[in-house]
Parts: sequence; C-alpha cells; structure tokens
Amino acid sequence: MIRKEKIEKLKEIIEELKVIKKEKNIITQENKFLQSESFKYTLNNGRVITRERLIKGNCDGSAAIIVPLVDGEFLTVIEPRVFTDLSVGIGFPAGYIESLEDAKAGALRELAEETGYVPDSIKLIDTFYQDEGCSMALNRIYLALNCKKKYEQNLDKDEIIKYMTFNYDELNYLNDMNYIMGVNTKLALEKIKKYVKER
Amino acid sequence: MIRKEKIEKLKEIIEELKVIKKEKNIITQENKFLQSESFKYTLNNGRVITRERLIKGNCDGSAAIIVPLVDGEFLTVIEPRVFTDLSVGIGFPAGYIESLEDAKAGALRELAEETGYVPDSIKLIDTFYQDEGCSMALNRIYLALNCKKKYEQNLDKDEIIKYMTFNYDELNYLNDMNYIMGVNTKLALEKIKKYVKER
Repeated sequence: MIRKEKIEKLKEIIEELKVIKKEKNIITQENKFLQSESFKYTLNNGRVITRERLIKGNCDGSAAIIVPLVDGEFLTVIEPRVFTDLSVGIGFPAGYIESLEDAKAGALRELAEETGYVPDSIKLIDTFYQDEGCSMALNRIYLALNCKKKYEQNLDKDEIIKYMTFNYDELNYLNDMNYIMGVNTKLALEKIKKYVKER
Repeated sequence: MIRKEKIEKLKEIIEELKVIKKEKNIITQENKFLQSESFKYTLNNGRVITRERLIKGNCDGSAAIIVPLVDGEFLTVIEPRVFTDLSVGIGFPAGYIESLEDAKAGALRELAEETGYVPDSIKLIDTFYQDEGCSMALNRIYLALNCKKKYEQNLDKDEIIKYMTFNYDELNYLNDMNYIMGVNTKLALEKIKKYVKER
C-alpha cells in the first residue's frame, strides 16, 4: 500500500506534467541526437555479419542510475516521458555519463543536478547493457547512502524534474500499479531488495 | 556454482562466435535500421519540450522476451553481441514484435524460430519500457512452460544463435560472472525467482 498524501501528491505532479499537445518537429540529419553507424564483423568461425550501433549525442548512451536513500526512504524523480502511455514517468535519478571512468562522478553530478541531494557514500550494485543488440550503452546502478539536500536543482533548458520520497513498499506498489515502467528503475528495485532487508 | 560440462560447452560456443575483425560499413540514410524523429510536446503546465524518438526498422522496437522451461531447466540462447566487451551474449530468447496485439504470438514465433521449442502454455510476468526517455519500445517477459523440441531452428540470414539449458543457480552464477549482461535477461532472472521457489 501507499500513504494517501503520497499518492495524491504524485497524481498532482503527473497531472501537471502530462502531455496535452504533440507536433512534429523538423530537424536536419546533422542536428539529430539519435544517430547510428553500421559495421561488418567477422566471427571466429568465419561468418560475416553486419550490425548497426546506436549513438546518442556523440556518446554511447551509457547511463548512471542512482538509488538515493534519504532518512530511510528512497528519493525518486518524476518527469515527462512523452513516449509512454502515461506521458509522465517515475523512477530513480539517472543520466548519461561521458565515459566509464566518469561513472561514479557522473552519478553524483546527476543526483545533485536533478534533486540537489548529496550522499555520504555511493556503492555500485549492478552493471548491464541497456540494449545489447544495437548499443554499447553500459549502465551502472548505484546505491547512494544518507543523502542530504545541499543544493538547488540545476536543470538543463529542456529538463523538467520533480522529486518525492517513498518507502520500499510504496515503490513496489507504484511498480505493481504501472506508475514505474522503465527497465532501469525496475531492475534497481529488484537489486536493492537485499539492502532493504539488511537495514 | 555451475556444472563443469556446461561452462566448458558455453566457453566453446563463445570462442566460436567471438568477433575477430571489424570494418566500417557504409549505408545510405534510407537503408538505416535505426532512425529517429523529433516532436514538440506541450505539457499541461504550459511548458514546451522537444524529444527525439528512436525507430527500429519502421517499428517502435517493442520486444518479447521468453523464459522457456525445459525439463526443469531454463533454455538460453548464445549469440553475437558485437557491441559488448565479450562480443558474445547469453540470455533468454527474444525478438521484436510488430504490435502489442501480436506480443504473445510473437513470443511463440521467436522461441520456435530461435530454438525449435514449443511450450504447453505461456504466462506474462512483466511489461516495461526499454528506454523510456527516447523510445516507445514496450517489452514483455513471458514464462514458457513445459517446452518441447518440435522444429529445427529457422534463422534469418544474419542471425547466428546457439542454445543451451541451465538450472536457476547456474543462471545466477552466469549473471554474477558477467556472462549475462543484458538488462532484459537480468530483469527476467529476478522476475522468475518466485516461480522457481514455487516449483
């Protein structure tokens, strides 16, 4: 179950952020964020195959997903997810990272920018390919402990992000009720189960 | 842990399928599998944002992931995953579906094509967005019960797929050892845990 004031607040945010109008936007090939390139691969057994690779803004699309703990609850972000049924998504803070070396710093940076929170420490809990058939995107899930609000949000021009805390049972409720639908958050929810039990 | 003959067989397949040579392949814009289009969205609060949407071969990239049970073990597929560190991936059978109405039939079709196996029945166990920020791809995980080998493999020209069965502990071992790295298979592994316990 979920506390009444939490689900009411969430529904209010969803109402505020939902899409009410959509228009096609013409952009040039050069200005596209999503690009691809094709390669021919020779395998050890002699077979030759071709595969296309997705590129996101000149990077491989690798992301850091941060599960922030704030006073025993989990901090989530609510933002427009225009391609989904609800047109608004709820999940853990996440963002693209420029290189794997930068993953931990990138996770901290994204958390601070999206929410203003800063943890005591962060811990890597899983690494996975987002779409292994057509992308090099290698994502990392971090658990961020004892987060405190230290900054104001600092968003890009096109970013709109609200944040709220929920306890673990409430997150599972939101998952079961199809508010949480993104695979990164779903996998993170499973992976943090054992840390919740340990607490 | 994992049975010695299973890990040896898996390593043999990985050796056979690994990439030994890569060449850039020039294709025209029209021939690309990965395309995108951009839209301008007006939100209920008056903000206007633009987002780009990934298109895979004229579809939205929605996929069915099938977890096939064969005599108490799980059937996995091993195939080239040229963009990953190992260049070969192990995971559950999966494939793109043309529409959501087609999801269940698509799951059965992919399983039969990739492995020749046919189940008694299939059960939907989760639905999620693969990359909710830039794609409409809505994936479904199915559990396929009592699968029997009925057909020969029937692969596309560019598909190379080997298959093997493992028990649940072995799949977790392969996950821990970074043989299983794709998010679809990782989430499926978590979601089937309760069915394994019930058996």
